[in-house]
This record gives sequence, C-alpha cells and structure tokens, in this order.
Amino acid sequence: MKNDATIRIDIVKAPSSKIKSVDFENLTFGNTFTDHMMVCDYENGEWQQPKIRPYGPIELEPSAKVFHYGQAVFEGMKAFRDNDDTIWMFRPEENFNRINKSSKRLAIPEFPKEYFFKSLEALLKLDKDWIKKGFGNSLYIRPFVIATEPGVSASPGKNYKFMIICSPAQSYYTGEVRVKFSEEFSRAADGGVGFAKAAGNYGAQFYPTNLAKEEGFQQIIWTDANSHEFLEEAGTMNIFFRVNDKLLTAPISDRILDGITRKSLIAMADVYDIPVEVRKISVKEIVEAAKDGSLKEIFGAGTAAVINPINGFGYKGEKYELPKLTESYASFLKDKLMKIQYNLAEDPFGWRYEVKE
Amino acid sequence: MKNDATIRIDIVKAPSSKIKSVDFENLTFGNTFTDHMMVCDYENGEWQQPKIRPYGPIELEPSAKVFHYGQAVFEGMKAFRDNDDTIWMFRPEENFNRINKSSKRLAIPEFPKEYFFKSLEALLKLDKDWIKKGFGNSLYIRPFVIATEPGVSASPGKNYKFMIICSPAQSYYTGEVRVKFSEEFSRAADGGVGFAKAAGNYGAQFYPTNLAKEEGFQQIIWTDANSHEFLEEAGTMNIFFRVNDKLLTAPISDRILDGITRKSLIAMADVYDIPVEVRKISVKEIVEAAKDGSLKEIFGAGTAAVINPINGFGYKGEKYELPKLTESYASFLKDKLMKIQYNLAEDPFGWRYEVKE
Repeated sequence: MKNDATIRIDIVKAPSSKIKSVDFENLTFGNTFTDHMMVCDYENGEWQQPKIRPYGPIELEPSAKVFHYGQAVFEGMKAFRDNDDTIWMFRPEENFNRINKSSKRLAIPEFPKEYFFKSLEALLKLDKDWIKKGFGNSLYIRPFVIATEPGVSASPGKNYKFMIICSPAQSYYTGEVRVKFSEEFSRAADGGVGFAKAAGNYGAQFYPTNLAKEEGFQQIIWTDANSHEFLEEAGTMNIFFRVNDKLLTAPISDRILDGITRKSLIAMADVYDIPVEVRKISVKEIVEAAKDGSLKEIFGAGTAAVINPINGFGYKGEKYELPKLTESYASFLKDKLMKIQYNLAEDPFGWRYEVKE
Repeated sequence: MKNDATIRIDIVKAPSSKIKSVDFENLTFGNTFTDHMMVCDYENGEWQQPKIRPYGPIELEPSAKVFHYGQAVFEGMKAFRDNDDTIWMFRPEENFNRINKSSKRLAIPEFPKEYFFKSLEALLKLDKDWIKKGFGNSLYIRPFVIATEPGVSASPGKNYKFMIICSPAQSYYTGEVRVKFSEEFSRAADGGVGFAKAAGNYGAQFYPTNLAKEEGFQQIIWTDANSHEFLEEAGTMNIFFRVNDKLLTAPISDRILDGITRKSLIAMADVYDIPVEVRKISVKEIVEAAKDGSLKEIFGAGTAAVINPINGFGYKGEKYELPKLTESYASFLKDKLMKIQYNLAEDPFGWRYEVKE
C-alpha cells in the first residue's frame, strides 16, 4: 500500500453516458450498471493504484483461480440522494470492515481503507446522476474481489482484482414471500465460511431454493447443519421473528453473517423500546407460536430490501400463515431506518455518511 | 441439446503452436496450457455447439454470476501416451457423471454426454503432441463450468460456459507431507455441497491451510464439522489409513467427494487381497494406532498425485511421525494403478479409455 499522501485515482471517463437509455421507473434489481467502475489490481504483493474506467467487460485467463477455486468475496451497500441533492451512504465503514473480514477468511489480501473510500467517492461523484431522488430510489453498490492468477492448482492466488460496480435501484418489492424452514439442506458448517460474504455461499443455496420454489416457497430459512432445530438466516438476509411484542433474532456466529441492517434494527429497537432477544431460536418454539397465535411477524433484514416481510412459512409438510397486521414492527422499523438513510430524520446513531462534492 | 447426428465441433486452430517454448522436464503443475481449449455456451435454455478455439483469455461482464455467487464446478482428469503412441484416459465417464452431479447441486444445467466426449476427443487429437511418453508424464485435463450471466441478484444464472483446458504434467511430487487433523475449521456441512467439486469448497480451505502451514504442516485432513471426531478427506484428496495390514477409508457422503482414485484403489485392494474397511474413522483410533505403532501408513488419493504418501500428522499440539516402510501399500497400489493408466498392465476392470485417432 502506498502512503496516503500518494493515493491518486487514475480516472478514464466514459466517452458518453448511457443514462438516457435507462428507464428509471422500471428497473430490475441488479441488472443495469452505471457508466463507470472501479478496478484495483493486486500484483507483486501489493494493491496497485485504483483506477476508474468505463463500465465494461473484463478479460481473464480461463485458468484464473476465481473460476476454479471460488476465491471471491463481495459486499452490498447503497447511496441515497436527499431532497437537497446531497448524497449519503449508510454505515459504509461497516461494509469496508466486513469485506476485509471476508477476504481474510478466503485468504485474499485485505484492501486499504483509504483506497476503498477515495475510489468509492470518486466513482460516486462521476456517476452521481444515476442516484435519483425519491424515497426508495438508491444506487446499489457492489464491491467485490476475485482471484485472477492463472493456474489450476488449488492454492491461494497471487493476483486479485478489487472492483466496485454500481446499479441504480428502486424500492425492492418481491411480492408476498413464503419461506421454507430447511429440514435437510444446509448453508454453512461450524468452522466454515458462513459468516463471510464468500461467493460460494450463495451458489450453494440455489438448488435447495429451487426445490423449495417447487413447493410454493420463495426462499429458505436455513437451520443449523447439525440438528436442523435452530433457525439461522435466510442466505441473503438475517431473520427476525416477532412473538407477541418481542423481537427474536439469532446471534451471529461463524455460520451467520453479521448483517449491518440486522444490527441497525437491534439498535433502533432499543431506542423505540421494542424488546429484542438475541439468542438461539428453535424451530419448535416458532411452530408453537404460529399455532397459538403469538407469532405475529417474520421479516428478513438486508441491504437490498432493508426489511422484507414474510407472509408464511412451511415446515415438515405443514404451511403456516402469518396474520396481516396494520401496525407491524417490519413497516415501523423500515420507515424509521429509511428516513435516516434518506436524511429525512435525525440520525442519533451517526450512521449517515455524506459523500462530499 | 441437438440430436447426436447433428453434433459437430466448430474448430478454429491456433495459427502456430507454442509447444517448442515449453520445457517439459521442468513443469509446474497446472501452470502451462496447451494450444487449444473447448468452449460451449449455454444460451436460450440449451447448450450450443461446442467450439474449439486457440487457448486464450475470455471476456466476462464484471457482474457475471460466477464472480459474485460462486456458481462454478470443475473436474480433473488425465490422458496418457503409451509406448505405442496410443492415447488413453482413465475412467473419463466417471468424471463426466460427477461434473453433472456437481452441476445439479449448484443449479447449473447438466452437460450432454455426446458433447463432452466428442469435444474432449477433438481437443485431445488437436493437442496430442502435448501428451508426452514416459511413466509419470500426462496431460491434466480440466473441464469446468461457470455462470456467465450478468446481474448482481442472488439467483441462478441463465447463461453458462462449459470449458475444457489442458495442462501437461509430470509425476507429481510434493516432497514430504505432514498433515494437521482439523480441530476447529471445517470443510463441509451435512446437507451442504462438500460432495460436489464446487469452486467455493476449495477457496474456503486456503486460510485454514495457511494457518496449518505456519505450524509446519502442508495440508489439512478435515474432520466432521459437528464433533471434529471423525476423519473425512483432505480437500483435494480422499484419505486412506493403514492400521497393521488393513486399509481404512471414510464412506462417501454429502460432505465427502466420491473420488475416482479412491474407488479404484478400493477395487484394486480387493483384487490384491488387501483388507479394506470403508467406515467412519475416529481421530481417537488413529492417534492410538500411531502411539502403539499399529498405524503404518496414511496416504491421499486423487487424480493429480494418484497417491500422495503422508509422513506424519499433528493433532492437539502433538506431532506424530509415520514409519518409513520399504513395502508400503501406497507405492504398491500407485504402481499397479499407474501401470493400468499407461497401458503397461492388463486392465481387468475396464478402466482404460482409448482416445482413437
């Protein structure tokens, strides 16, 4: 890593913007990308100068380690435009720390903080027109790292690419969501990589999720691999259960992602006097709570959706429907959190991060 | 998939061969590639015509799913040249079946058998000069599949590339190998993807392996994630233990790869009256056998090394050395297996597969 004083971002601007061809009223999540991307190469034992280039394809050897050994991690974060045209991010330092935690577990060299923030801000300034006003509009930001060294022997690569790509997003609505509590398949092992945003954790979920879809569910709530008795996370979201007026969520572990939305909701619940218990949650107690009517809500928490309410769940061939509440914790907390994100409310937590011009 | 009668391989030859620049006496495993590669794209719901192209870089969108969600699987196989210049492979149908088993678990469309064998044989014929005579020389063949569809939403891709690349290899010798029995980290969960050659399974092992290297070991023998009491596999090899005159190896499961060398050795041991027990193997019994001198050998079994003898192991801070045998099962079985591979011995099992001109 170069000395902070010497960090300069090498910028090549796109000859023209494609923004006019984009229908911002009809965006599919994660399918449209802005005009630029950040690329930083790790070579000769250090991260080289971060570069901003026109968004476009990259060239890799077919033997690049990412293709064969899944040495790849990522993050998901968002930028928002407030009514005064100021651009904000939400707790980006948390994402920065987490991508390095993920990288460490995948034997990828950690990325310097100054490189991350300087290149990210330069990228957001260049593509700021892609961040649209309006509650629910955002720019989804995807930092990721891949092992690029050629060679089909199973060992850590010597070369990597750290990249940031950006995709404009609208309010994330997936329709009604019913989840299956996993009875057979697992997402993560004790002592494994479940806590990391490692690429391989996601592809491994697609097949079980497809099977669940055939049974009429949209997602899976993963249970512990040892006993399938405890509810863990949803794979792309942490998960909360409301039993009577109490919120329950599983503790983080080496299997469960330390979600930023998750911990923000826990902090907010405390401020709003919503009791939260962070502890192991058994399938049994949730099934019983569904049967006796004390289970009021289930919702997922993650960057893309913020909060994703869940309408029902399935377990051992039985399906359980959740009540339709007029005053749900999910909508209350989502509104409060988004108002902080969009600078529509005070931010007593210091979570907002201004992207200065 | 097209009808068998219509399968034609679209071939573009390299303008010149780089074979003369290769020092075949000093090859590093997996670092040198032949003149050509096979590429087959999955588009519009079907595998398109397989193509052979000069070996070279591929271009992908930075949002290609393989980079973000680890939807990628691979195989490892070898081709051998016998003294009469006939080219042989070893049980390639097993690799073909296994890559589709891996693909299915990763929600990747299965590849048609005719496409696999026709394109593989066409590729080997084009690059046959890279397969050198001599016991121990081989061509290492790496089929792999990656999700190429752009888009940063966690769902299976619609587009894939099935590729085959080839790398000339010499006899695989890694020096003395000491292994650590894993006490904390895990490779695979019950109900997970450990049985598949999924890319993410490999990158996840690098960090724990680096830590083991700092303690003086070269590899890890993974134990079950639940209790760490049972020995499973080495991550790139299955593992055998010889206690007195008996061979022990763990049964395959959804955590353990169904290794082709492993099952070939079990079949050969039967023919040569070596008693084999396929059952759960506890760390405790192996430590005790090491202490009382009944543990004679440990060896790994896999395509790259065929058999890799292990000289010692570590567990809970203790290090155990294995005796140096003059008549080891490892060298006996390796010699017998390689003689079948190189057409230097009868093949009662029907494992050899001739690549016809």
